[in-house]
Amino acid sequence: MLKDDKFRALLYITAFILAIGTFFYHSVEGWGWLDSLYFSVITLTTVGYGDFTPKTNIGKFFTIVYIFIGLGILVGFVTPIGEYIVDRRLEKVQKREQKTET
Amino acid sequence: MLKDDKFRALLYITAFILAIGTFFYHSVEGWGWLDSLYFSVITLTTVGYGDFTPKTNIGKFFTIVYIFIGLGILVGFVTPIGEYIVDRRLEKVQKREQKTET
Amino acid sequence: MLKDDKFRALLYITAFILAIGTFFYHSVEGWGWLDSLYFSVITLTTVGYGDFTPKTNIGKFFTIVYIFIGLGILVGFVTPIGEYIVDRRLEKVQKREQKTET
Amino acid sequence: MLKDDKFRALLYITAFILAIGTFFYHSVEGWGWLDSLYFSVITLTTVGYGDFTPKTNIGKFFTIVYIFIGLGILVGFVTPIGEYIVDRRLEKVQKREQKTET
Ligand SMILES: [K+]
Ligand SMILES: [K+]
Repeated sequence: MLKDDKFRALLYITAFILAIGTFFYHSVEGWGWLDSLYFSVITLTTVGYGDFTPKTNIGKFFTIVYIFIGLGILVGFVTPIGEYIVDRRLEKVQKREQKTET
Repeated sequence: MLKDDKFRALLYITAFILAIGTFFYHSVEGWGWLDSLYFSVITLTTVGYGDFTPKTNIGKFFTIVYIFIGLGILVGFVTPIGEYIVDRRLEKVQKREQKTET
Repeated sequence: MLKDDKFRALLYITAFILAIGTFFYHSVEGWGWLDSLYFSVITLTTVGYGDFTPKTNIGKFFTIVYIFIGLGILVGFVTPIGEYIVDRRLEKVQKREQKTET
Repeated sequence: MLKDDKFRALLYITAFILAIGTFFYHSVEGWGWLDSLYFSVITLTTVGYGDFTPKTNIGKFFTIVYIFIGLGILVGFVTPIGEYIVDRRLEKVQKREQKTET
């Protein structure tokens, strides 16, 4: 229950912070909506391709603050997704093994 | 035993998710097979050189979802490999020390 | 209390290490002040866009050492910020749920 | 004691894995020694600027394997360095506070 609550909180905040980034980069750097969302995700997950980078001073300053605030949130959001998929797979393998043992 | 099971599950899912990415980028972005695999690994380990980046809208959208799903898995896959190598080395050093003490 | 102390220590060291990087890249690579700070943050959070990269040998060597020393610090600084925001949101959601249950 | 042993093991393996990468990229991609070391560090710490990237097929394949093996090691090497610096600072702050309290 608590874990579901935490993931829902993470989902909510992730959506919120990506919306802010998308809106900011669209307005200030003049990129398209998808490009601005794409850049926000690429930045806060620390992938950082560099195909889009802020050219204005406000954009660079915002990006510094955006990373400080958002990086921990996106790492926190992405980690349980991976764990969930691995745990699912693990359960499946272990059930099969139990069957073979009996 | 459980740890081996977990690593095998991680290996399986990692291979699966890299296969999906390789196939997608080969088909949609038109990159070669090795380049598509290389890009998938560079992306999901968050290295993100930027020598290859998605140019199509579908490619950008897929990459966002791909990172959300795959990043935690690849981090989970890479971490125990490093730990295993370090633990091996640590055992070797500690055995040598025990010998010197006796 | 101890947690506040730790965050204050992290804030202090983060500011200090970013100041060193900013000063170094401004002096050695000849970038503007904001660009030098921006590059230091982009590097130590491992985003690494590549819009700025060291061109001199001293700059490359410094960057290697800078990452070894600073990466753990910035990851340590950014993580609790994300956790704080998520915990705040979680509290809010759980309080609302308790009200609905009564 | 054990912690020191672990860090020494990490230092040893990190030096070893960086030497392998440096030698490989120097030989196969034809980069200078410092550039090859710089690229190895930038890759395994996941910064990934993209100012250097492998151009040959062998180079791309090696980089995939290199990341799988080395990423966990370098993250394991860099993390305790950051923790050590933060703990040092924390001790200093707490000692000063104790003095003020008395
Ligand atoms: K990166
Ligand atoms: K990058």
